[in-house]
Amino acid sequence: MSTKCCLSRELPVEEYLIEEEPYYVPVGNEVEIFTAAYKNLLPINLKGPTGSGKTRFMEYMAYRLKRPLITVACHEDLTATDLVGRFLIKGDSVEWNDGPLTKAVKNGAICYLDEVVEARKDTIVVIHPLTDDRRMIPIDKLGLILRAPDEFMLAISYNPGYQSAVKDLKQSTRQRFVSIEFDYPPARLEKHIVAHESGVDEKMAGDLVEIGQRIRNFKHHGLEEGVSTRLLIYAGKLIHEGISPREACRIAMARPITDNPDLQKSIDEIIYAILE
Amino acid sequence: MSTKCCLSRELPVEEYLIEEEPYYVPVGNEVEIFTAAYKNLLPINLKGPTGSGKTRFMEYMAYRLKRPLITVACHEDLTATDLVGRFLIKGDSVEWNDGPLTKAVKNGAICYLDEVVEARKDTIVVIHPLTDDRRMIPIDKLGLILRAPDEFMLAISYNPGYQSAVKDLKQSTRQRFVSIEFDYPPARLEKHIVAHESGVDEKMAGDLVEIGQRIRNFKHHGLEEGVSTRLLIYAGKLIHEGISPREACRIAMARPITDNPDLQKSIDEIIYAILE
Amino acid sequence: MSTKCCLSRELPVEEYLIEEEPYYVPVGNEVEIFTAAYKNLLPINLKGPTGSGKTRFMEYMAYRLKRPLITVACHEDLTATDLVGRFLIKGDSVEWNDGPLTKAVKNGAICYLDEVVEARKDTIVVIHPLTDDRRMIPIDKLGLILRAPDEFMLAISYNPGYQSAVKDLKQSTRQRFVSIEFDYPPARLEKHIVAHESGVDEKMAGDLVEIGQRIRNFKHHGLEEGVSTRLLIYAGKLIHEGISPREACRIAMARPITDNPDLQKSIDEIIYAILE
Amino acid sequence: MSTKCCLSRELPVEEYLIEEEPYYVPVGNEVEIFTAAYKNLLPINLKGPTGSGKTRFMEYMAYRLKRPLITVACHEDLTATDLVGRFLIKGDSVEWNDGPLTKAVKNGAICYLDEVVEARKDTIVVIHPLTDDRRMIPIDKLGLILRAPDEFMLAISYNPGYQSAVKDLKQSTRQRFVSIEFDYPPARLEKHIVAHESGVDEKMAGDLVEIGQRIRNFKHHGLEEGVSTRLLIYAGKLIHEGISPREACRIAMARPITDNPDLQKSIDEIIYAILE
Amino acid sequence: MSTKCCLSRELPVEEYLIEEEPYYVPVGNEVEIFTAAYKNLLPINLKGPTGSGKTRFMEYMAYRLKRPLITVACHEDLTATDLVGRFLIKGDSVEWNDGPLTKAVKNGAICYLDEVVEARKDTIVVIHPLTDDRRMIPIDKLGLILRAPDEFMLAISYNPGYQSAVKDLKQSTRQRFVSIEFDYPPARLEKHIVAHESGVDEKMAGDLVEIGQRIRNFKHHGLEEGVSTRLLIYAGKLIHEGISPREACRIAMARPITDNPDLQKSIDEIIYAILE
Amino acid sequence: MSTKCCLSRELPVEEYLIEEEPYYVPVGNEVEIFTAAYKNLLPINLKGPTGSGKTRFMEYMAYRLKRPLITVACHEDLTATDLVGRFLIKGDSVEWNDGPLTKAVKNGAICYLDEVVEARKDTIVVIHPLTDDRRMIPIDKLGLILRAPDEFMLAISYNPGYQSAVKDLKQSTRQRFVSIEFDYPPARLEKHIVAHESGVDEKMAGDLVEIGQRIRNFKHHGLEEGVSTRLLIYAGKLIHEGISPREACRIAMARPITDNPDLQKSIDEIIYAILE
Repeated sequence: MSTKCCLSRELPVEEYLIEEEPYYVPVGNEVEIFTAAYKNLLPINLKGPTGSGKTRFMEYMAYRLKRPLITVACHEDLTATDLVGRFLIKGDSVEWNDGPLTKAVKNGAICYLDEVVEARKDTIVVIHPLTDDRRMIPIDKLGLILRAPDEFMLAISYNPGYQSAVKDLKQSTRQRFVSIEFDYPPARLEKHIVAHESGVDEKMAGDLVEIGQRIRNFKHHGLEEGVSTRLLIYAGKLIHEGISPREACRIAMARPITDNPDLQKSIDEIIYAILE
Repeated sequence: MSTKCCLSRELPVEEYLIEEEPYYVPVGNEVEIFTAAYKNLLPINLKGPTGSGKTRFMEYMAYRLKRPLITVACHEDLTATDLVGRFLIKGDSVEWNDGPLTKAVKNGAICYLDEVVEARKDTIVVIHPLTDDRRMIPIDKLGLILRAPDEFMLAISYNPGYQSAVKDLKQSTRQRFVSIEFDYPPARLEKHIVAHESGVDEKMAGDLVEIGQRIRNFKHHGLEEGVSTRLLIYAGKLIHEGISPREACRIAMARPITDNPDLQKSIDEIIYAILE
Repeated sequence: MSTKCCLSRELPVEEYLIEEEPYYVPVGNEVEIFTAAYKNLLPINLKGPTGSGKTRFMEYMAYRLKRPLITVACHEDLTATDLVGRFLIKGDSVEWNDGPLTKAVKNGAICYLDEVVEARKDTIVVIHPLTDDRRMIPIDKLGLILRAPDEFMLAISYNPGYQSAVKDLKQSTRQRFVSIEFDYPPARLEKHIVAHESGVDEKMAGDLVEIGQRIRNFKHHGLEEGVSTRLLIYAGKLIHEGISPREACRIAMARPITDNPDLQKSIDEIIYAILE
Repeated sequence: MSTKCCLSRELPVEEYLIEEEPYYVPVGNEVEIFTAAYKNLLPINLKGPTGSGKTRFMEYMAYRLKRPLITVACHEDLTATDLVGRFLIKGDSVEWNDGPLTKAVKNGAICYLDEVVEARKDTIVVIHPLTDDRRMIPIDKLGLILRAPDEFMLAISYNPGYQSAVKDLKQSTRQRFVSIEFDYPPARLEKHIVAHESGVDEKMAGDLVEIGQRIRNFKHHGLEEGVSTRLLIYAGKLIHEGISPREACRIAMARPITDNPDLQKSIDEIIYAILE
Repeated sequence: MSTKCCLSRELPVEEYLIEEEPYYVPVGNEVEIFTAAYKNLLPINLKGPTGSGKTRFMEYMAYRLKRPLITVACHEDLTATDLVGRFLIKGDSVEWNDGPLTKAVKNGAICYLDEVVEARKDTIVVIHPLTDDRRMIPIDKLGLILRAPDEFMLAISYNPGYQSAVKDLKQSTRQRFVSIEFDYPPARLEKHIVAHESGVDEKMAGDLVEIGQRIRNFKHHGLEEGVSTRLLIYAGKLIHEGISPREACRIAMARPITDNPDLQKSIDEIIYAILE
Repeated sequence: MSTKCCLSRELPVEEYLIEEEPYYVPVGNEVEIFTAAYKNLLPINLKGPTGSGKTRFMEYMAYRLKRPLITVACHEDLTATDLVGRFLIKGDSVEWNDGPLTKAVKNGAICYLDEVVEARKDTIVVIHPLTDDRRMIPIDKLGLILRAPDEFMLAISYNPGYQSAVKDLKQSTRQRFVSIEFDYPPARLEKHIVAHESGVDEKMAGDLVEIGQRIRNFKHHGLEEGVSTRLLIYAGKLIHEGISPREACRIAMARPITDNPDLQKSIDEIIYAILE
């Protein structure tokens, strides 16, 4: 289990190429917009709720554009150094290791910063010179300025639904990105996706989607966020495995999205009404 | 007492196998649900109060599924690095040590993050790519992406009873888990457990369970949390050792769960009423 | 004054054995309860105000049970690493040093975490696996899981009188401990203790105890905590040394416990009334 | 991808020279003021909203004055050490690396601290001795005092629109800088810029500018900041690429600047009214 | 100016002996109380305002008792390690350096923690085992328990006048110390001190003391703390040097103690009234 | 640009000698007071607004007294170690480097802590033993106590105008310093200074001073601090360079001191009224 001395081993960029076409059904003209932005070297911002397909869309576009996709899940402790790179000690010498952003710039990859508002301020500021006409990244620790090739693209995502005031993008950051809004897919499309991914038939998939849509209506009545397509698929998988549909919906939909007993009861009633 | 140079010694994964069947009596269909989720590669979330048997259930399922169980007690200072692994200096070379999550992924074990909301945000974000269809963990420091075998499962637990707003799971995390709710076992079953584990007879066990149930009713009258089955067993053990039943209940039930003198008095009255 | 290279020198566990019987007079059946808990491998929690004899009781029980007593005074900066142990660099090699908790587990000692709520959360979580039926401590840095012998016991103390909401034990911790409550000794016993320890006669000791008891009544009138037996003994020692009784009580009782001039005046009046 | 041992390699200052004249159309007499300040060794402060051309103006002036321009994007974690320089370990010796401020002082460059209020207090204090008649920087770690040549200039920028009380420049800092205010360019000029940079014709550029100006009027009705010239150019580029004008304006203007659905709707109405 | 390799050089304890009798005039029986506490191994707490002679009293008692006096000025960043000691690297070996508290214990010195409430909690907790009948200090890093000789004494000071709730001694700490209250010396004594230390005649010293006493009356009218004897001496020294008495009082008394213009004016009026 | 191995190079103290007489015109008897304090070994505190000449006065006095002047700009991250000194690693040995305070004590220099309230508490406490009759500084890391020669003086400055409650000097610190108040120079003197330093004629300098004085009257109407003499000189320099007087006053006075549009307008009106 213990691995010796592989400090500077870096994943070759080819590993980030997506070789099989991801399953993605466009909802609107998001593919054309993304393509136009990519051609014009415009950075892009995907706004939308949890589980509305932003990550899958990025994989699909990376596949179509034949570029490696380097994804970074942002969090409070992500530093600029994590993104750009650092020196690591190896024996008594020292080697530089590219961070994911530097690797993407060097290789003309697409760098996708998921939930960018979660990152610390210094992380966000580090992308500024990459997102205006300079398209460069200064690597202070190497004394280098890297200029991004035209193939490089920066994309970010965030969920406008539950940003607090302290965790919002500054205007000086926001105004650097073209923004595409995402939402849950329309019913007919979602039914198709649930059936395809979980193995249940179209009738059951339709029932699950109807439950999902009714739950989403609670969003303005105390529910923090609607149920994602992913959870509908979870329910479908459990049903396909033999769990009763009502039980499956309770444990894959009602319980995951809220701890509020009143909301849970209302959701259970929806489930019982549709899955008679 | 001092141990020399064992920096990279890691516990072999076999140590995490549970060899004897843990004592666990199912309350509902939680065993079937867990099994269905495991087969479908769905991560699972156990919700419930302190001492309602979540940890024991995990040990029981790990035994049934014959997988090693690697448990991490989450806390505020647990970092992503603690979970994933780190380099340690040994003499003048450097060795990589797997963290518990990486070890579980490599060995197809079940990784159980107990009280996950206590962990820092970066710890929680690190499990995201393991909980969608990617089922992978990027180990930045090694430049590796590990893909989880089908045997690997991620389970988390948390107690919805006393989460504050600042310590709640984000929707983008919650919606990745099928959720099973736990509660105290029903009276007949709990009586059996208390007698079995403490050595008192069924009559005394029944009295202890009745006291426990009445105390749990105080939960909506100022008591933060009900008395756990574990404390009922503690009381039983002290009684079995010769401490008077009333005294045993005071020191093993009333005093541990609250410092409020009024609540303590009410609980003492319950104890005196039942243990005449 | 400067000591060379003793990094990994650890105190042999025999140093923690208490060889002379400590002076302790039981107030109730606390000795029996402690002994029963010890035999049943139940961890114990001593609750009570400052100076009510918790530390002395621990020394007495350790003496009776003939186990070494390793005491840790908890504070905000105490880390899990401090408790468990760490690697220390010695020249160009590295040696492991057991922390007090690990040393207690290895040697079947009693580990006493004094004022446990003062410690950081990760410190408190580290004791969880030692306090259920697993009775083990994972030492991540060594890749070891230590199982505690039956002789090992974990005891904690805290003062419920002045815990704030932010510094309270979580229920998931509290419900792991049998709890014994401590309070100031009854008057007759306290008089005996004061006379024995300070050298004043029984009459003077009685006056001091009466002053102490009246001051304790102020606790519900603005006084944060009552006067401890220790301070009564301080006053006795100063009187025995020749300081006037009134002066001794002022500087050993009234001034230490409060800075509030009104409370000080009320306490002085009590002193003057009794020590005419 | 891994680079060996280049710890002390520093970018030669010539890299910071701007060789091609940047596209900049003066709005008022800002060029004369900057030149006069430069000749009189007065530090300068550019105040104005996001995307009003401050960075481009700095590049233009650096080009005119034929001085290297070293830009630092300030953020919360920028330390005085980051600005001044640090020692780095290389093998078993140690080398000093100039920070961007030190490099600018040594080479008579223009140092531009963008969004200076974001930096920590110690960073801001470090520029004090450079901004009065001492014009020096003490480098404590080298035991050096560097005196700035007349060619050196310090410029800072900040956006008075959204500074909170905690993030404001202290008077003792503010009163060291001559201040030039920036705003969006006047309509005729902005139309020219949008057409020039995006490729759309003058008619369409005029429509985009009119939309931009109307959006800016919302600033006193809940909009945090007006739409920048940069976003107008983004919209133009997408239109030039074939995206419908209305769609382009929505994704390049309405969505980037706000998440508020009501504001978005009002902005959409402006877009639809002008781009019939 | 640069000193080579003196890492483990420690000041010999003789340096802390006070060889000349400090100028101190007792106000009450504080000398007797201190002596009685010292004989009975009781730790002592000096409470009183700034400049009321606590530090001078400590020097006087150390001189009388012929013990070295090791003073530590407490502050927020003082750690337990600072007090107890640490290992320091010297070339490629490591040496232990005693902290001031350890040095005092080893040498039977008096250790004086000035303004103890300023220190961090872990610093204060470290003195607990030294202040009960254990009179020991565990040095975890050396694996040693040091027992204090009878000559060792621990003294602390604090100023009850401006402690906030967050910076107060816990009862479990307070109740370990005999407390002596200090205040400004009575007028006749203070006049003598001012004349003796500043060189002005008794008449002028009397005027200064009268001004001081009147200013102290403002303490209940918005003044945070009265003027110390030290500042009266400052004024006297400036007068002795030729500065006009009124000017001297303004700059040595009115201006140092407050920035409030109204209070300054009231104080100036007192000065002008007395120094006609 | 990279400098090799100069870790322990320290600036010789002669570098801190001021060789040319600084331009300073006394306003009152501040020179006499400073001289008297210096002779009597009294530390001094300069209180006054930004740009009122405190730093220049220190340079002037250091020149007159022929002592080196070591200035430290205090900030939140300045530690006691920064002031006192530290060990630095050089190759495989270690060298001590004096901090600015230690260097001043060793060389009998004047140490000037500018804006002392910005420093952390441990920094401020470290000066206590230097500011009473002990006049010493303990250097714990060297095990040395340095006694200050009579030539050494400690001076601090702070601006009472905008100290918040959290950033105020403690009384135990304040009462160690004689305090001299600074304010803007009287009109006649300020006119002379502005003309002398900027190159404009006496008439224009008079106008600038009148504008400055009127702006200062706004201080009680929302302006945080008055305009400093330095900014008047900035305006003069720009006018001398050919910028129109009104424009020069706007960018050198109105804009630097406030972002409030209403206050800016009022100030512009003053400018227009005087510079017709």
